[in-house]
Amino acid sequence: MLSEKCSWEVAHRMSFESLKSVKRIVVIGGVAAGMSAASKARILRSDIEILVFEKSGYISYGACGLPYLISDLIKSPEDLVAYDSKFFKEKRDIDVFLYHEVIAIYPAKQSVLVKNLKTGAQNEYQYDKIVITTGARAFVPPIKGIEIKGIFTVKTLQDGIETKDFIRKNDPRRALIIGAGHIGMEMAEALAMVGMDVTIVEREPNILGTMDEEITKIVEEGLIRNRVKLFKSTSVREFISKNGYVREAILDNSESISADIVIVSIGMKPNSEIAGEAGIEIDHTGAIKVNQLMETNVPGIYSAGDCATAYHQVLERQAYLPLGTTANKQGKVAGENMVGGNASFKGIVGTAVLKVFDLEVARTGISEKDAQIEGFNFISNVVEQSSRAHYYPGGSNIRIKLIAQRNTGRILGAEMVGMEGVSKRIDVFATAIAAKMTVEDIGELDLSYAPPFAPVWDPILIAANDLKKKIRDQD
Amino acid sequence: MLSEKCSWEVAHRMSFESLKSVKRIVVIGGVAAGMSAASKARILRSDIEILVFEKSGYISYGACGLPYLISDLIKSPEDLVAYDSKFFKEKRDIDVFLYHEVIAIYPAKQSVLVKNLKTGAQNEYQYDKIVITTGARAFVPPIKGIEIKGIFTVKTLQDGIETKDFIRKNDPRRALIIGAGHIGMEMAEALAMVGMDVTIVEREPNILGTMDEEITKIVEEGLIRNRVKLFKSTSVREFISKNGYVREAILDNSESISADIVIVSIGMKPNSEIAGEAGIEIDHTGAIKVNQLMETNVPGIYSAGDCATAYHQVLERQAYLPLGTTANKQGKVAGENMVGGNASFKGIVGTAVLKVFDLEVARTGISEKDAQIEGFNFISNVVEQSSRAHYYPGGSNIRIKLIAQRNTGRILGAEMVGMEGVSKRIDVFATAIAAKMTVEDIGELDLSYAPPFAPVWDPILIAANDLKKKIRDQD
Repeated sequence: MLSEKCSWEVAHRMSFESLKSVKRIVVIGGVAAGMSAASKARILRSDIEILVFEKSGYISYGACGLPYLISDLIKSPEDLVAYDSKFFKEKRDIDVFLYHEVIAIYPAKQSVLVKNLKTGAQNEYQYDKIVITTGARAFVPPIKGIEIKGIFTVKTLQDGIETKDFIRKNDPRRALIIGAGHIGMEMAEALAMVGMDVTIVEREPNILGTMDEEITKIVEEGLIRNRVKLFKSTSVREFISKNGYVREAILDNSESISADIVIVSIGMKPNSEIAGEAGIEIDHTGAIKVNQLMETNVPGIYSAGDCATAYHQVLERQAYLPLGTTANKQGKVAGENMVGGNASFKGIVGTAVLKVFDLEVARTGISEKDAQIEGFNFISNVVEQSSRAHYYPGGSNIRIKLIAQRNTGRILGAEMVGMEGVSKRIDVFATAIAAKMTVEDIGELDLSYAPPFAPVWDPILIAANDLKKKIRDQD
Repeated sequence: MLSEKCSWEVAHRMSFESLKSVKRIVVIGGVAAGMSAASKARILRSDIEILVFEKSGYISYGACGLPYLISDLIKSPEDLVAYDSKFFKEKRDIDVFLYHEVIAIYPAKQSVLVKNLKTGAQNEYQYDKIVITTGARAFVPPIKGIEIKGIFTVKTLQDGIETKDFIRKNDPRRALIIGAGHIGMEMAEALAMVGMDVTIVEREPNILGTMDEEITKIVEEGLIRNRVKLFKSTSVREFISKNGYVREAILDNSESISADIVIVSIGMKPNSEIAGEAGIEIDHTGAIKVNQLMETNVPGIYSAGDCATAYHQVLERQAYLPLGTTANKQGKVAGENMVGGNASFKGIVGTAVLKVFDLEVARTGISEKDAQIEGFNFISNVVEQSSRAHYYPGGSNIRIKLIAQRNTGRILGAEMVGMEGVSKRIDVFATAIAAKMTVEDIGELDLSYAPPFAPVWDPILIAANDLKKKIRDQD
């Protein structure tokens, strides 16, 4: 972990002069990864031209805030925008072209074909280096009636604006959410907050499919407690409209669910088509294959964010787990390397957290399901411990599932659910996984303690020590 | 960090049979370290006699809860007791002698002299192994009038009971706290919560002396905001009574402060006298010197908890930083080793957190002051970042100070203050310090992100990346 000189110091000494031939970089897509790449490149090189093409009317926004825009906790779409194109032009000398879609990349010519979506005009732009940060789109299943008014996805700021607008104009009372993943959970809370009766339909037998049942069943109980109706192991066969608006969904078993608004949140699909057409390698999920330098297989072409793979430190290979934090980090690496740097994306460990009504739910590393699929020799346990000292009022139980390598005790993953103290406790495990710690190492950590914040044996320590004991007892 | 087989597996394979000669262990002091040692020994060996001598009437209580007992947030002293002596006898076959003080240890004879404080009777008990877990006592300065009624320390459960009782009977309105350390801060909140006007007198120019000024000045502002009066760089020269009760304190500069109750919280002193008299080595702070096996320099005699030193992973030597978490961990190690185990206390990194009114204040590793004293070649920075996504309501700023080795970037310490999200964020740094991570490693961690819990660049990442940049820029 610790070397005499950090690698970034070495990187710094590499002169950015070495890439003086780079005069113009092009960024395809101006949300998290794209604007991070553009900004990082500008910090390192004041002498180059930086063009960003964004097909929508918004850049640099926090897509993770969309459920809260829709629930009206956040009033205006502009609140989600970190910086606008005027800021990027004036403060960073970055040229952002809104409503401009890159429709083709020509690696041999080092150019892109760009369509102005307002005028229809097409123009070709030369580049020296390019980064594809086209993100992902919500997957829309081919259900009969899917095109009916009142059915939305929640991925882009435009999606959020349209959904919020629909709610304001039509005052829907009954909401149906298709898919019980992270977005589905957050949208269930958001729509319940604005007073709707919420129903969720999930095709799989469990909600939050990336996590294990010992944790997700607590979340299910939370949904029920908050009067959300949940249908599992079933799908919507057809949507029925009335006066042109969605009114009903028919399930596989012909059961009918009334709905004035439908949110489709069954997954994301990388926007990798123009990359594939340009001969860039795509993986089985549809994501653009990159290495830890954020390079694709085509020289001079980088990719980052929701359209690209990310190195997974536990799986020790590239994987597709699109998240905003990763997009920002990868964008910075791509931006640096495009202008001659030598940055490396250290990788993800699979950390995620979400709020579902009164619950905090989090994961990092791999689940038991993942461990099985990946062929790890693993062992796991589940503990439940108070978030505060037993005598301090207001605490609540945190349930932790830990997964470790059976032979070494190295931690592979952690999942957590509780009413408080989950969101940042998961980061202790994320840090431990990055450091390749064992359950023994974790059980001996000097974690903070004061009665309002933790018991003297933090739930983290209890979970690690219990699993350590379980490993020892099986010998 | 990761070896093929964990060391505890090796430890487990060592047979506890090897210490079959151990027939009786004696534990001197029955709070955190003592009862942890006794319990661990019992788990490993069902065939030995375990005697615990406790000079007070209480064992196994959470001393950190005392401010909340006094503030009446916790109603009864019994709420702070995890398990009573009946539980230990019936469930763990551990003999606890309350009101029994060990007044001498005779290593040559392998015996202790014990005084029954109720009857005055003295008895000698043989032991095979012994652990000294006598804890610490509040330091009481030789101020004129210190013996007047209404002046309290807050260390033992008895202290808490007496203070609470005094408040109930005398309804004091003006409280004076001597010493602005952790206990002083918690007591300021506790006494303000029960409606008193609170004044703090601190001898040093800064409060919370183990932390740096960039953090403590935010805490000072918090005290002022909560109408606590603060006198720094001054001491109490004399207490004045009226009708036998404290009424006034005279400062060095002859200023007078009215007070109906006084809390003295200027530090702790290890209860190491009987150890010293028995020829056990004591360090310059008065703490019993131990190694990582919790052995003293005298064979067969162990020590753990507030009376003993603890291995500090950043300083790479034994240090005296008494805390409940450490006492529990050290007690377990001592208990295991007394009955033939081979456990090792991995050490502390100096983590602590406290709640001061609406603020969470935390530290881990060493402060800049420590780094100077210890001769580290260090660099530090301070950042201030929101606890939540900028657009999500209810967030507040977290200020983080980071200290790292200048040449390697290895993290040496972190301090934090804010209204939320501090208590467990500090544990990410505690984990990183244990793993000997650099600021670069930390800046690339895959930490959890969702708008209600963190910005997309967590304050931890911002702090690490800023310090990384600062190190690079100085080259």
